[in-house]
Amino acid sequence: DPYLKVFSLNSNPALAQEIADQAGVELGKCSVKRFSDGEVQINIEESIRGCDVFVVQSTSAPVNEHLMELLIMIDALKRASARTINIVMPYYGYARQDRKARSREPITSKLVADLLETAGADRVITLDLHAAQIQGFFNIPIDHLIGVKILSEHFLEKNLEDVVIVSPDHGGVTRARQLADRLKAPIAIIDKRRPKPNVAEVMNIVGQVEGKTAILIDDIIDTAGTITLAANAMMENGAKEVYACCTHPVLSGPAIERIDNSKIKELAVTNTIPLSEEKQSSKITQLSVGKLIAESIKRVHEHRSISTLFD
Amino acid sequence: DPYLKVFSLNSNPALAQEIADQAGVELGKCSVKRFSDGEVQINIEESIRGCDVFVVQSTSAPVNEHLMELLIMIDALKRASARTINIVMPYYGYARQDRKARSREPITSKLVADLLETAGADRVITLDLHAAQIQGFFNIPIDHLIGVKILSEHFLEKNLEDVVIVSPDHGGVTRARQLADRLKAPIAIIDKRRPKPNVAEVMNIVGQVEGKTAILIDDIIDTAGTITLAANAMMENGAKEVYACCTHPVLSGPAIERIDNSKIKELAVTNTIPLSEEKQSSKITQLSVGKLIAESIKRVHEHRSISTLFD
Ligand SMILES: Nc1ncnc2c1ncn2[C@@H]1O[C@H](COP(=O)(O)O)[C@@H](O)[C@H]1O
Ligand SMILES: Nc1ncnc2c1ncn2[C@@H]1O[C@H](COP(=O)(O)O)[C@@H](O)[C@H]1O
Repeated sequence: DPYLKVFSLNSNPALAQEIADQAGVELGKCSVKRFSDGEVQINIEESIRGCDVFVVQSTSAPVNEHLMELLIMIDALKRASARTINIVMPYYGYARQDRKARSREPITSKLVADLLETAGADRVITLDLHAAQIQGFFNIPIDHLIGVKILSEHFLEKNLEDVVIVSPDHGGVTRARQLADRLKAPIAIIDKRRPKPNVAEVMNIVGQVEGKTAILIDDIIDTAGTITLAANAMMENGAKEVYACCTHPVLSGPAIERIDNSKIKELAVTNTIPLSEEKQSSKITQLSVGKLIAESIKRVHEHRSISTLFD
Repeated sequence: DPYLKVFSLNSNPALAQEIADQAGVELGKCSVKRFSDGEVQINIEESIRGCDVFVVQSTSAPVNEHLMELLIMIDALKRASARTINIVMPYYGYARQDRKARSREPITSKLVADLLETAGADRVITLDLHAAQIQGFFNIPIDHLIGVKILSEHFLEKNLEDVVIVSPDHGGVTRARQLADRLKAPIAIIDKRRPKPNVAEVMNIVGQVEGKTAILIDDIIDTAGTITLAANAMMENGAKEVYACCTHPVLSGPAIERIDNSKIKELAVTNTIPLSEEKQSSKITQLSVGKLIAESIKRVHEHRSISTLFD
C-alpha cells in the first residue's frame, strides 16, 4: 500500500520496525541526527505526498530530545504534503503533570497536547495514559489502547492458582479490575494513610491476600518505590508469592536495584519504552505491543482509504 | 516596582542576574529542576498575579532542554495569572533552520515561534536573529536588538588605525556595513565561489585589505570554520592583523581549537550564550548585553504601566 507510511524516530526503533512488519510495510526512510551544536537535523528521504503517515515515538527519556524530534518531524511532514499525520506515542511523557497539585505549577501534559496540535498532528495513538482525562486535552482524535490485554495473556499462560490482583493505590483500582476480570480473580487495594502529619504512612490492605498469589498492577513504574513497598506489604500479610506488572517501564534512578532486592518474583512490562542497558534485570519480562498498535494503524488507514472514494 | 518581575531559567543565570540588577529588581524566585526520569519540574515560588513577567532564557545548547524549560515556564506563568509574559531570548536557537534548503526539511525556527505563542508568550526580546525575516514568523511583537553597538564600542576603545570591516560571506554585508559606519571604516567582502562542482572553493576578496587591520564580523560563530578560513585569507592577502567578532558564541565542536590555531588576534563576542569551561580561550573577550536588554525591558514595562492608567 503506497499510501501508508510508518516512520521511526530515535526513541523506540525496534518497536517501530515491528509495527511496520505487522502492518506489512517497510519503515519510511528518514535521517534524524544532530547538528554540531546539538540542534535536531531531520530530513525525510522519500516522498510522502498524499500519504497517511504514522510516526512512532515514545516521549520517554531523554524526554525533551524525543519530544522535539517529534515536533520537528511533524513540521517536516506537514510541509512535505502528508495527507494525515498520525502520532504513535506508545508512552506519553509528562502525563503525570496533568493538574496543578500546588499553586503556580504548570500543566505540562496539556502543554504537550497543544504543542503536538500546533505542529500539525492529526491524530494520536497511545497506550494507558496516566489519567484518561488527558484525552480531553486534545481537540484531535485519540486512540487510547490498553496494555492490560497483553499483560493478562502473559499471566494466563502461567496457570497460576488462587490469584488476587492488587492495586498499589486508590488511583489504580479500575486497572486492577480490568486485569482481574480477564484472570477471573478477586481484587485487593493498598490503602495508604498518614495517621498524623510527619508520621510514617500506614499500609492497610483492603481485601484478602493471605495464602494467595498476588499480582500487583500499575500503569507506570518509575523509581519503583511504591511497587516494591507494596510487594513487601503483600508478603508481610501472608501472600504465597508476588508478581508485578505495568505498561510503561520508566525505571529511573534506583528502580532496578529496588526491584532486584525486592520480594517481587517477576515483573512483566511492555515495550512502550525500550529497556536500555542500565535497565536490565533477570526479574523483568518484556512483552510487545507491536501487534496491538499495528492493528490500530490498519484500522485508521483502512477507514481513510474508504473515505477517499468519496473525496 | 512590584509589578515588574524578572525570572531566570537555566541557560544564562549570570546574564539574568545582571539584567535584574540593571532593571533595579531582584530575580524572581522559582525552582527549575528535573524529576528522576528527566522531566522538567518547575515551581514558581512567589506570586506573579497581575505582573509583567520577563523570563530570561537563551535556547543555546542543550537547546531542547532549554526550549522545553521555557515553554513549561510560560505555561506555569499563564496559569498563575501573569499580566504579560515577555520572553527574553538573547540567543534564538534553531534560527538557521529558517527555510527549506532541500525538499522535505522542517522550518524549525517557524515551529519554535508557533510553540512559544501556543504556550502563551506575549512578546519576545531577542538579539541579532540569523535572518530578520524570523520576526515575521511571529504574530506577537518582537523587539529585535542588535549587538553591533556593543562590539563597535569595544573596537573604538582600541584606537586601531587603518581598519577595514570584513564580511565572511554575502549574507553578512549589512551587518559589516553597520559596524563600518560606527568605526568610520570601509568594508570588504569575501566572495566564495566554486569554479566547477567538486572543485575546492576559491576565496576572492572584494575590497582592499592589504596593509590594513581587518575586523571580521558574523552573527553566529559555530564550528568556526568560516571565520578562521576567512582570517587566513586576510593574512594571505596582506592584512597587517586580523580581529574577529560576533554576537552569538555558539562555539561547538572544533571551534576553540580552530580559533586558538588561527591567525585571529582577538575574538570579541557577547554573553548571549555563556562560555562554559570547554569554551575558554585566551583569545576571546566577552562583552555584556545586560544593560542593552535591561533598557529594553524598562521601555516595555513603562509603556504598559502608563497604559494601565486607562485600563
Ligand atoms: N516525571 C515525574 N516524576 C515524578 N513525579 C512527577 C512527575 N511528573 C509529575 N509528578 C508529580 O506527580 C504527581 C502526580 O502523580 P499522581 O498522583 O500519581 O497522578 C504530581 O504531584 C506531580 O507533581
Ligand atoms: N544548527 C545548525 N548547525 C549547522 N547548520 C545548520 C543548523 N541549522 C540549520 N543549518 C543549515 O544551515 C543552512 C542555513 O545557513 P545560512 O545559509 O547561513 O542561513 C541550512 O541549509 C540549514 O540546513
